[in-house]
Amino acid sequence: MKILGIDPGIGICGFGLIETTSRAGAKALDFGAVTTEVDAPLPARLLELYESLTEVFRETKPDVVAVEKLFFAQNITTGIAVAEARGVVLLVAEQNNVPVYEYTPNEIKKNLTGYGAATKTQMQEMVRVHLGLVAKPKPDDAADALAAAITCAFLYKTGETGGGYKFSNNRGRKAKK
Amino acid sequence: MKILGIDPGIGICGFGLIETTSRAGAKALDFGAVTTEVDAPLPARLLELYESLTEVFRETKPDVVAVEKLFFAQNITTGIAVAEARGVVLLVAEQNNVPVYEYTPNEIKKNLTGYGAATKTQMQEMVRVHLGLVAKPKPDDAADALAAAITCAFLYKTGETGGGYKFSNNRGRKAKK
Repeated sequence: MKILGIDPGIGICGFGLIETTSRAGAKALDFGAVTTEVDAPLPARLLELYESLTEVFRETKPDVVAVEKLFFAQNITTGIAVAEARGVVLLVAEQNNVPVYEYTPNEIKKNLTGYGAATKTQMQEMVRVHLGLVAKPKPDDAADALAAAITCAFLYKTGETGGGYKFSNNRGRKAKK
Repeated sequence: MKILGIDPGIGICGFGLIETTSRAGAKALDFGAVTTEVDAPLPARLLELYESLTEVFRETKPDVVAVEKLFFAQNITTGIAVAEARGVVLLVAEQNNVPVYEYTPNEIKKNLTGYGAATKTQMQEMVRVHLGLVAKPKPDDAADALAAAITCAFLYKTGETGGGYKFSNNRGRKAKK
């Protein structure tokens, strides 16, 4: 099963594709980040994001998408932009007919490190170890995306069929106007 | 000039098309709301919104889009969903090559009623009067969309070229990957 993790963002949107290899593991097939021009107006950046993500879906052909659930604890203004970008991420997933699973930051941390209060560095190290990589994946946004994908792989294996909240449980219905 | 006001939302997204007729006025050409299925998963709803809005743009062929600026004063959870929908609204505007202007709720109230603390009922009544309608436009989301469009028309006329923050001042550049 190919799982595409995505870390939504307007300036930089991380992605990471993994393949589940056995009960025990997963390997990284591809990871990186899509960026948009800092000085471009928001609608233009959202279109850049849309086109780049469409390209990522076409190239990676994932079976499932995993994203982090959104909370606005810290910065509301940044949060709005992230949510706007996230709307585009979910749209592209649906247009490509790929089911989306979402996980809280705590679920992801717990699944990767065993506890919900892991630091960013610990998380990145666990992503590296889980995927058998030589170095921590860069940029950080790609590491975050891979962490969501690994969580999805893990919860699938333990029989929780993706765990978290599966958005797309009503898939296959025709959209009505 | 044809101005399409949009009131973003995931369940119901209002729109209102007006045409500036003279220094003094504007008339309503079309208004209404796009809705999505309440029990559908979020990605499916965003795709419904995307497809319906694409249809609205194709039918109304606006010169300019006006939207309300987003604040998250009241409800963060609702706010996230609105921002996700707003991302799709801005994407569709950009795909249709229509510049987007945004206005704060206060700017819109001030422009329609003369003061920034107008009630919803007062606003709807002023939308009706400005556009010479017999009854208040329904649903409320369409009235809100028309209010944004009227604000845009008014600020254009007073030489503020749309006022508010024009997102698309760097338009015409090619998106880079």
